Amino acid sequence: MKGVILGINPSATLVDISHEVPPQDIWQGAWMLGEVFGCFPLGTIHLAVVDPGVGTSRAVLCLEVSGQQLVLPDNGLATRVVSLRRPDELKIISVSNPAFWREPVSATFHGRDILAPVAAHLSLGLDPDSLGPRQGTLVRLDWPQPVPGERQIMGSIVSIDSFGNLISNITSEMLANVPPDGRVSVRCADHEARGIARTYADGRAGELMALVGSNGHLELAIVGGNAARQLAVARHASIVVTW
Amino acid sequence: MKGVILGINPSATLVDISHEVPPQDIWQGAWMLGEVFGCFPLGTIHLAVVDPGVGTSRAVLCLEVSGQQLVLPDNGLATRVVSLRRPDELKIISVSNPAFWREPVSATFHGRDILAPVAAHLSLGLDPDSLGPRQGTLVRLDWPQPVPGERQIMGSIVSIDSFGNLISNITSEMLANVPPDGRVSVRCADHEARGIARTYADGRAGELMALVGSNGHLELAIVGGNAARQLAVARHASIVVTW
Amino acid sequence: MKGVILGINPSATLVDISHEVPPQDIWQGAWMLGEVFGCFPLGTIHLAVVDPGVGTSRAVLCLEVSGQQLVLPDNGLATRVVSLRRPDELKIISVSNPAFWREPVSATFHGRDILAPVAAHLSLGLDPDSLGPRQGTLVRLDWPQPVPGERQIMGSIVSIDSFGNLISNITSEMLANVPPDGRVSVRCADHEARGIARTYADGRAGELMALVGSNGHLELAIVGGNAARQLAVARHASIVVTW
Repeated sequence: MKGVILGINPSATLVDISHEVPPQDIWQGAWMLGEVFGCFPLGTIHLAVVDPGVGTSRAVLCLEVSGQQLVLPDNGLATRVVSLRRPDELKIISVSNPAFWREPVSATFHGRDILAPVAAHLSLGLDPDSLGPRQGTLVRLDWPQPVPGERQIMGSIVSIDSFGNLISNITSEMLANVPPDGRVSVRCADHEARGIARTYADGRAGELMALVGSNGHLELAIVGGNAARQLAVARHASIVVTW
Repeated sequence: MKGVILGINPSATLVDISHEVPPQDIWQGAWMLGEVFGCFPLGTIHLAVVDPGVGTSRAVLCLEVSGQQLVLPDNGLATRVVSLRRPDELKIISVSNPAFWREPVSATFHGRDILAPVAAHLSLGLDPDSLGPRQGTLVRLDWPQPVPGERQIMGSIVSIDSFGNLISNITSEMLANVPPDGRVSVRCADHEARGIARTYADGRAGELMALVGSNGHLELAIVGGNAARQLAVARHASIVVTW
Repeated sequence: MKGVILGINPSATLVDISHEVPPQDIWQGAWMLGEVFGCFPLGTIHLAVVDPGVGTSRAVLCLEVSGQQLVLPDNGLATRVVSLRRPDELKIISVSNPAFWREPVSATFHGRDILAPVAAHLSLGLDPDSLGPRQGTLVRLDWPQPVPGERQIMGSIVSIDSFGNLISNITSEMLANVPPDGRVSVRCADHEARGIARTYADGRAGELMALVGSNGHLELAIVGGNAARQLAVARHASIVVTW
């Protein structure tokens, strides 16, 4: 893919974000895209390929969101990026004009043959509307929403980072009225952290801590350890905040 | 190596292809080089280091192939790139002029001390003939060739990709007269796939499928799974197509 | 972090050295920085984040060393880079001026919110003294020193590379008077190599060898194997050279 891009635009700036998304794990790809999108400058083109449906009738999309572009399969990969944007901030184009593809197009690697050349042409200033017609909607993963109750919020673990920290879908805004001290309990898989700390080093080595991470989401971490492994917790596990 | 290159040519465009070749696995390095070579534009310099013979009398080569250059140890790493080219498309130079090396040259890391500075000087336009004398041949791995029979082709697994797909040395050209439907059988290590599919999503989750991958080679894949792990098949295993 | 940097300096040249330092492993980060530092050209800015103390009162530093700059937490990460430099070659600045930070600063990811924007501003030519006041010292890891004796040097394993080679703190200078042949014995964890070889290929497959690696340090390697795994040796193990 990098060779194809540089063959079209030799002065493209290529940035690797991750090659560690597990095979076919659209969810994790969607999470990562949502995490990094807002950190990149206007004009960035995000090319994402987690594509179990490659070669089928699933579309390839070019999205314009808040002054950045994305090129990706229409399989939910954009879920997190678009969930944070208003509909009028979105432009969705179905990439169907083969004029900008690499020929012949293989049935199993659209990343190399469609997405990479399309992204390269966009980086040269191609009008996205040249790529194909607009479409009104796109595939979204059924992303879970936290359920607030009286003195309680029920959420779930939506991602596990490379440190093994368990990141939930509960955001700092939802915790605005929660006391940060020991009166609050955060429970996940029969384990409990008391209080919401500010940073990892506020705990003792080996301690399970709840804190709001750098993305504004409540997470559970074991100081100097790996919470996912040590608690045997996987994505989609329930997390409950009570106070 | 990157620091050495940028010290010589600060405006070099560095592209990482893979740091995942297993130690000393020249075969896998040769396969990867063959896969990516044709995707890069004219003028690209490919620097490859899988070098168990570092510090011995094995040569370092600069190759010119179809308008691209390669800098690599003469140990078979170029096997796949040169196998696909006519002899008159090759220029082979033995890198022996220390004027373009980093001093002192360590006995265990020619990547940093010879190959990186040589590649950097090439990127500045150095004439490859300045690097040393021409040589007529180079080391080639004994790459297996498929054996076609009557209504049968016997091949072998030559690579396993990061999805666990088992990639064979049988190409789509060899399959031109093979019926793509259920009359064809693809067997490997007591497992069988029937028919040759177009893409992964044509099968059911967990199904073993045969298909022609994005490099034009017949491969076996388990839909949503990892064929190498689940079938316990390694490189060099036999694969037989019968119809 | 890459997005933040490119948002400030779109023409920055980003170079990935490693994303494989184990979580919280300041020692390994310090070793890697020491290894690569001298290979990069004048004017390079090294950004390093291994930061278990993120969000605490530990400082963030900007160092100037031999014409290069480093931006890193003050937790010992710079140990190897500064150990090889004279004090008058050092300028140490405590990064405390939020004018060059990304707001709001999270308590758990200063890499993105402080170090990346600071490094980006430095790449645009910012005077490091704009970042905060000078400080006289910095945190150093208690790096072990080899103990020379009569016909013996006692050292320790300070790093294990991706090949499983066991790299010691004994340098080639210390070995100047040691006979390189079979009269010298190198022992580690009840295993022994005899003689000091020049390169890996000087041994037979599976043989334990001692040699001086590309960084000038004595190391133990198993030809075609993984010494750390096969000998079950970890960092800090003793290594003894006797002759």
